[in-house]
Amino acid sequence: MSLVSVGTVAFDAIETPYGKTDKIIGGACTYISLAASFFRKEAKIVSVVGEDFPQETLDMFSSKNIDTNGLQIIKGGKTFFWSGKYHQDMNTRDTLDTQLNVLETFDPVVPESYQDCEYLMLGNLTPAVQLSVLERMKKRPKLIVLDTMNFWMEIALDDLKKVIQKIDVLTINDEEARLLTGEHSLVKAAKHILTMGPSTLIIKKGEHGALLFQGDKIFHAPALPLEEVFDPTGAGDTFAGGFIGYLAAADDQSWETMKKAIIVGSALASFTVEKFGIERLTEITIDDIKARINEFSLLSSFNFNKEDFTF
Amino acid sequence: MSLVSVGTVAFDAIETPYGKTDKIIGGACTYISLAASFFRKEAKIVSVVGEDFPQETLDMFSSKNIDTNGLQIIKGGKTFFWSGKYHQDMNTRDTLDTQLNVLETFDPVVPESYQDCEYLMLGNLTPAVQLSVLERMKKRPKLIVLDTMNFWMEIALDDLKKVIQKIDVLTINDEEARLLTGEHSLVKAAKHILTMGPSTLIIKKGEHGALLFQGDKIFHAPALPLEEVFDPTGAGDTFAGGFIGYLAAADDQSWETMKKAIIVGSALASFTVEKFGIERLTEITIDDIKARINEFSLLSSFNFNKEDFTF
Repeated sequence: MSLVSVGTVAFDAIETPYGKTDKIIGGACTYISLAASFFRKEAKIVSVVGEDFPQETLDMFSSKNIDTNGLQIIKGGKTFFWSGKYHQDMNTRDTLDTQLNVLETFDPVVPESYQDCEYLMLGNLTPAVQLSVLERMKKRPKLIVLDTMNFWMEIALDDLKKVIQKIDVLTINDEEARLLTGEHSLVKAAKHILTMGPSTLIIKKGEHGALLFQGDKIFHAPALPLEEVFDPTGAGDTFAGGFIGYLAAADDQSWETMKKAIIVGSALASFTVEKFGIERLTEITIDDIKARINEFSLLSSFNFNKEDFTF
Repeated sequence: MSLVSVGTVAFDAIETPYGKTDKIIGGACTYISLAASFFRKEAKIVSVVGEDFPQETLDMFSSKNIDTNGLQIIKGGKTFFWSGKYHQDMNTRDTLDTQLNVLETFDPVVPESYQDCEYLMLGNLTPAVQLSVLERMKKRPKLIVLDTMNFWMEIALDDLKKVIQKIDVLTINDEEARLLTGEHSLVKAAKHILTMGPSTLIIKKGEHGALLFQGDKIFHAPALPLEEVFDPTGAGDTFAGGFIGYLAAADDQSWETMKKAIIVGSALASFTVEKFGIERLTEITIDDIKARINEFSLLSSFNFNKEDFTF
């Protein structure tokens, strides 16, 4: 089924305890669409870059069947730039520089051929922009997934609540779930969020995996224990892209398929963190992903038989 | 198979955001043996209390088939007392009072009938005392599990390393694994610890579950997402007791059985935190435990078919 992803396409400069990059390709929409491209014959993107954005990356997108008709290239404009430095524990980071550039006046264009898409991923972005994309759809997509962050809860909560009302699946991290609801318990926070609009909630817990909530059901996807997290940038976006890409390909929103989709997202994210930026994501094949999913099965499967309590 | 548990039997006074207790029954060995008692016809304990320890608790132990021949009752002595207050997030606590009392001169007695036990749980205690129990066994048990804590890493590291060399399974939490090895990555920390003596390592991550390491194999047991953690005291000991109790009953140390044992421990610990102290653990039945284990299956099971990637 057709899939549209909205979000940033950007330049990042990243410093981790393992090293440092110059300007490399980043942005939520980049990770989302690359992750989704493993499952979709065509992943369409809505975003904006400046004239400084490299043609070779646009060519790479095409080679991955990523449809860039909705990617505006602003003449004379400069691409959004973010620079950050991760702390030793890799769980926290400092933003060193943010240059919004063309993002400042981003008015998303949703091409005619995108407007009847069935799966829509609203990557982390100003809630008002996420809302405007929704309004520009000819019909409501079958499934709308939204990612956001604490920043918008602090400066644009009303807009965020408006867009959250209109979606099906929200993905946020544990601290954001607590911030959004004032509840420390994630189970209580989830119950609260499921009254705000979405019927499904994903709470990302980084190295501790992710929780999927729907009605009274809960599923826990582990994270793969890694010797080294080389660069966590884009892990959450990769996760979201793998999740919606898998759902769109299966064209099924059942609980069982959602569980598998969250494992697919986790598997893809476990590749992203192995190298800087999108490097690993552009190297791997569907067979690598299948092998990684098998590792997730080994990691979390157990099986009690009837005889197990007849001591 | 015969199971001996060594550790404290104590009085606790606990304050959590949900309330406050007077002196109630606590101690690592109490939780361990109660948890193990669901699977063992006879769980033997080695510990010490004072004359102030209530007869009704000793009777309760007997009613649960806990063999207290190795529980010294010191005439005129007072039972070890600990008092603590949990912070709002329940992950951290302040110790308000510690009165070692009879624990200060604890010289463990291992009754003749205990000395050929096949499963031995060394609960959190001075490493020198743990070592002395090991030395007092007629033959080496089939499986020795040891629990410890950061405190001993700080003040008795040499003794701790000595006893760790002699055991099969170590259970510690994530921060302790990092402290013991100087490695931030839990995978690296685990590799390091598996060179120190134990062939199996359990890293407890509280609300994030637990990891089981053996050779190159890793298993992740989730924690049950709870609306409220009422009192975390004893959760780790309950976990260890359920783990070794299940292994002793199955009398099997295969990887598949170890995975089940860690789920059993997690299920039992999820009961302990529902009320203060040992209250919940003395109420539940094996059927409650089976139902809880089923919740763990629902929480973490997923199943990919061959058709799942033929889009």
